[in-house]
Amino acid sequence: MHTDKGTIETGPNLLAGVSLPAAAVFEPALAHNLTWMQAFADAHGARLAPHGKTTMTPALFKRQLEAGAWGITLATAPQCRAAFAHGATRLLMANQLIGEPNMAIIADLIEDGAEVYCVVDSAANVAQLGRYFAARGLRLNVLIELGVAGGRCGCRDQTQVLALAARLQEEPALVLAGLEGYEGVVKADDGEPAAAIRAYAWRMVEAAQALEEAGLIEAETALITASGSAWYDLIAEVFHEAELGAPFVPVLRPGCYVVHDHGIYRQAQRGVLKRQPTLKQGLEPALEIFAQVQSLPEPGLAVVAMGKRDIGADQLPEPLRRYREGGAAEQTLSVAGWKVVKLMDQHAFVRLPAAADGSDADEVRIGDIVAFGASHPCLTFDKWRRVCRVDAALDVIEEMPTCF
Amino acid sequence: MHTDKGTIETGPNLLAGVSLPAAAVFEPALAHNLTWMQAFADAHGARLAPHGKTTMTPALFKRQLEAGAWGITLATAPQCRAAFAHGATRLLMANQLIGEPNMAIIADLIEDGAEVYCVVDSAANVAQLGRYFAARGLRLNVLIELGVAGGRCGCRDQTQVLALAARLQEEPALVLAGLEGYEGVVKADDGEPAAAIRAYAWRMVEAAQALEEAGLIEAETALITASGSAWYDLIAEVFHEAELGAPFVPVLRPGCYVVHDHGIYRQAQRGVLKRQPTLKQGLEPALEIFAQVQSLPEPGLAVVAMGKRDIGADQLPEPLRRYREGGAAEQTLSVAGWKVVKLMDQHAFVRLPAAADGSDADEVRIGDIVAFGASHPCLTFDKWRRVCRVDAALDVIEEMPTCF
Repeated sequence: MHTDKGTIETGPNLLAGVSLPAAAVFEPALAHNLTWMQAFADAHGARLAPHGKTTMTPALFKRQLEAGAWGITLATAPQCRAAFAHGATRLLMANQLIGEPNMAIIADLIEDGAEVYCVVDSAANVAQLGRYFAARGLRLNVLIELGVAGGRCGCRDQTQVLALAARLQEEPALVLAGLEGYEGVVKADDGEPAAAIRAYAWRMVEAAQALEEAGLIEAETALITASGSAWYDLIAEVFHEAELGAPFVPVLRPGCYVVHDHGIYRQAQRGVLKRQPTLKQGLEPALEIFAQVQSLPEPGLAVVAMGKRDIGADQLPEPLRRYREGGAAEQTLSVAGWKVVKLMDQHAFVRLPAAADGSDADEVRIGDIVAFGASHPCLTFDKWRRVCRVDAALDVIEEMPTCF
Repeated sequence: MHTDKGTIETGPNLLAGVSLPAAAVFEPALAHNLTWMQAFADAHGARLAPHGKTTMTPALFKRQLEAGAWGITLATAPQCRAAFAHGATRLLMANQLIGEPNMAIIADLIEDGAEVYCVVDSAANVAQLGRYFAARGLRLNVLIELGVAGGRCGCRDQTQVLALAARLQEEPALVLAGLEGYEGVVKADDGEPAAAIRAYAWRMVEAAQALEEAGLIEAETALITASGSAWYDLIAEVFHEAELGAPFVPVLRPGCYVVHDHGIYRQAQRGVLKRQPTLKQGLEPALEIFAQVQSLPEPGLAVVAMGKRDIGADQLPEPLRRYREGGAAEQTLSVAGWKVVKLMDQHAFVRLPAAADGSDADEVRIGDIVAFGASHPCLTFDKWRRVCRVDAALDVIEEMPTCF
């Protein structure tokens, strides 16, 4: 096999034939996460529309849909087009649709049979969309976004939501199909984030009920949708408790869960498990970047051939394991005390612990392969045109193209 | 035209038909920079091997070679393969070549007629390369890297350089073809960076002379090469003043110059012009990201549909100009007082100044197109599979694929 960044040959050894650095997704953890999150959504009476922007990897979209996902969430019109081109037909664009070229992309998808939802939060955008889709002779499903003061997009209160819904009635090309929100931008003034998230979810429920009571929901089935990868449990819980009933169906949109994380979302998941004691086992990190020691120029310093071009840098990567080049996947070497202290475009600086007892079984060598964990996955996937799916022995099962 | 992120149609208007966000390179500034840097290298008796990792855009490699560049510098074996596949035949891999799959890529390129140089800084890597290339029946040009204490890769002093050169003599498959360094990791203990850079360049000159005097240089023409995009003038100056003569030829490797920068390297370029008063005019920023206002949820806040997925985030992007969607490129609107305060994966938060005089000529509207400057270009190019080359009127001249 051949990638833009390297050459890949499926083989029986530790990433044998793979040009490093390379990104690998472990099948056992991937399979676990797919099942886990679908079961979570099912248990809460919610549909799952995983956020596809995380991976933009059609092979993973396929797995998510096969595991029971209702649709795929995307952030932009070109992302919707890419997902549809690879078989995802129900697309939730959890973002405003702005600009005629982007509207044209979505209109083309609708003509081709896609079921698309996008988000509105302003009369100006409603007018633009109404005009464009009317001219195309198409109808677009829109969700009104409810945001929070000091947050990102979205109406700031229920009054604005209702006013925008009323404005939507004037646009025959637009179908009000529900309410959208994103709790990831909610700030807790009193340091009680869980309470603030719950309060926001209840505000969404109330706004949805107000829309329904005012007879402004047009779609037969309407969506109430929120949730990123950190607080999805609280969103699911509130939407479940609310027992909204028809026409509303809750839709959850976590994205990172599919390969989970070694940093911020792993921390967030600890919070989920603490809040939800009935969940016995959590998500498992499935994505690792493999790279090689290229230089040992000074005692205590290894330079690894991996940089911001290869791995997310919102947090510094975490060394997980080490292998001897040409060795077997079972024969791991220690990275105890290894710490990434700096990341350049193509290089990582790793601080090594002082040599301990003169034993050199774990001596670092040029060419040693180091597995790194990253945070968060969205900004690691987008560094790669292809990602390897591997088994526990690091045999490459599949080469998965990305479509950023 | 069709890109992964959007749809592009060449047209007579302001990026007409281009799905935003999009990355654009302005032809006038690009042409200026290409000529400028080549003239700079020529004036200093140096060859130019622009660092291709910055853009990984074959159409730009072609322009650099047509403008007189001697070769293209790359950071990894897959980058070398991509450049060669697009017509660059002289490849300077300014990095260690680690791992058999990467060695295989370079060996294949040599078999296919490429002239390749790579860098060594350890006996272990010399042994690995010697063994691999001997087994392939090929000879590989290597440059010894001279680094600095506390820096990145590279031998730390001349003694190590000479020892490694002696070790190289035992590997018939390896040809010592010069000395490599990177002044970008030099730290000035006394706060005099220019003096520290000069001192480093002179250390490189001395090490090159020592190699030559010891009869360890094997290539008929040997390279002495350094320089990133901030201090290339001092490197060029010292290599020029040194009058090394045969077999040494200085090679400069700046990368960012081709589209220049709106942040750190623009600042660095001011330093170049201050140090080099004979240079009348400097480089010009040529790369901009165009994105649209998607939400105006609160007074003083615009959310723009552009994020870390679209633009380098080492520094926050700088709003440069604004256009009305559907307007003309000449009709720019003010972004005075606009400030990006936060960048998420797909969104930028822009703080707007308080409305001044009640005039709404410059009123912000949903759909307004904002041009942003980024720093630095390496981490903006790698967000795109295609970049638009545009003229001053923002007509798209060419769609340039990248090959990250």
